[in-house]
Amino acid sequence: MDGEVLHKTLYLSVDPYMRGRMSDRKSYADPVGIGQVMTGEIVTRVEQSKNPKHQVGDVVVARLGWQEYAISDGTGLRRIDPSAAPVSTGLSVLGMVGETAYFGLLDVCKAKEGDTIVVSGAAGAVGSVVGQIAKIKGCRAVGIAGSDEKVKWITEELGFDAGINYKTSEHLVKDLAKHCPDGINGYFDNVGGPITDAVFPLLAQNSHIAICGQISMYNSAEAEMGPRFLWNLIMKRATIRGFLVFDYIDRFPEALKDLTEWVTSGKIKYRENVIEGLENAPKAFIGLFHGDNIGKQLVHVSD
Amino acid sequence: MDGEVLHKTLYLSVDPYMRGRMSDRKSYADPVGIGQVMTGEIVTRVEQSKNPKHQVGDVVVARLGWQEYAISDGTGLRRIDPSAAPVSTGLSVLGMVGETAYFGLLDVCKAKEGDTIVVSGAAGAVGSVVGQIAKIKGCRAVGIAGSDEKVKWITEELGFDAGINYKTSEHLVKDLAKHCPDGINGYFDNVGGPITDAVFPLLAQNSHIAICGQISMYNSAEAEMGPRFLWNLIMKRATIRGFLVFDYIDRFPEALKDLTEWVTSGKIKYRENVIEGLENAPKAFIGLFHGDNIGKQLVHVSD
Repeated sequence: MDGEVLHKTLYLSVDPYMRGRMSDRKSYADPVGIGQVMTGEIVTRVEQSKNPKHQVGDVVVARLGWQEYAISDGTGLRRIDPSAAPVSTGLSVLGMVGETAYFGLLDVCKAKEGDTIVVSGAAGAVGSVVGQIAKIKGCRAVGIAGSDEKVKWITEELGFDAGINYKTSEHLVKDLAKHCPDGINGYFDNVGGPITDAVFPLLAQNSHIAICGQISMYNSAEAEMGPRFLWNLIMKRATIRGFLVFDYIDRFPEALKDLTEWVTSGKIKYRENVIEGLENAPKAFIGLFHGDNIGKQLVHVSD
Repeated sequence: MDGEVLHKTLYLSVDPYMRGRMSDRKSYADPVGIGQVMTGEIVTRVEQSKNPKHQVGDVVVARLGWQEYAISDGTGLRRIDPSAAPVSTGLSVLGMVGETAYFGLLDVCKAKEGDTIVVSGAAGAVGSVVGQIAKIKGCRAVGIAGSDEKVKWITEELGFDAGINYKTSEHLVKDLAKHCPDGINGYFDNVGGPITDAVFPLLAQNSHIAICGQISMYNSAEAEMGPRFLWNLIMKRATIRGFLVFDYIDRFPEALKDLTEWVTSGKIKYRENVIEGLENAPKAFIGLFHGDNIGKQLVHVSD
């Protein structure tokens, strides 16, 4: 049909938010039904095109889900430049992942020079970019992650000022306090639960918390219990805000311009954890919840 | 000494925030020591003055604490006009109480025409003003309070659209949902705990929560536990902010101008619960935590 494009999938992205699509709990998007194609972003090559805007051979990012071939109506596609960076980055640092880090840190956490920024899930796709943008902006960056290997990566390779392995920390509040002597001005939360509880006592005046993800909760059928903390916000005049990157869609070009410059100049390093074969996508997805991945988890579908 | 003023106390204010001053837990202000004068706002009459700015007979609001006579250096006093409204209102609707409601609702909750606003502690000093300002601004106002008498007062006399007695409600979320069919755009929280838990499932998109007080927590030595809710903020793009009215000190004149107009025109009604005698101030204070008061709790010290 006129306007349609046939896509061949090169890479697909697995992300924690997809857990919400696998549940019929009320959310910001409809669930994916049993037997339907799992939703998600993919990098594709245009194989056939009846759309003058898209040429055979173009590499585009599309929200077409977990499948080897897909037909689109030619809308909602973002062309990427294979000469700037590997095409897989369109699903990671030069895509939604980088944009999430960018707006969550700069717009929601309002990070500015001299701030102390703490990020949970710091060795994950989003968290690792958050800390590096914080450094570019002149902040102190402290990451919380789940293994010594992850802590080593963010501090020795990515330039975080400090990292904490929450699995071996005997007192997370004290460990955080040691690395945040002036309190925490911004907290970028990917995780929730007890890790986030440890941040509240250390908030600085007029601090900002961005709730990006709560991966520790996504597999819970019932609400977990935790210490109440809202009283703490009063004396700290603190703000907590939940956000979705889609809310910033009008500003994506601005973010991609900065991110591309930072990636090509080496100011932002990234790691991609690639599993081979569409049939292994579920395994790659489940691994996110076991902390298997350092950096962005991708599935390579075809060349 | 030159500049000094001798004050005679007419009324003193008892407020929930004072609970924080009676504990050595870290807070935004220093605790009051044993044997020191309890801090707080009072309405006074100037008895003697060596300060050209203040004349004998002037009625002023001052932060001089719970005492019959006090000497000030003449600074930090706010003169009130006894012909505009009873002087006691300088401690209630035409003072910090009204200002707290004003900025919490309009600046923190960002209430605008058509919004549904829920307020907890709705028959309290601050809460009762919040709902009435919401109505003035064209919002739907729903109050949560602790007795049928309080619910009757806010709905029949103050013009709230609906009220819920949380002590007799069998399912607070369902009762709230019934009165907030389009969700909750703004929540002004004076109480915290299970009442606030019931609000989270009903938040509308881009909603704003103002944390003004958490009276349900102030007597707890240890952190109470409650259901985790931060994940809920993501899909709702909701914002929670703690605030102190002192942060708006530069804008107090703006608030007092509006509040005075609304009170003198009858658009805002208020109730004051006056206990007689300085010796009964502790009793009046403790009563705040038992829900004894409707409207502002004051102590009358002298005429």
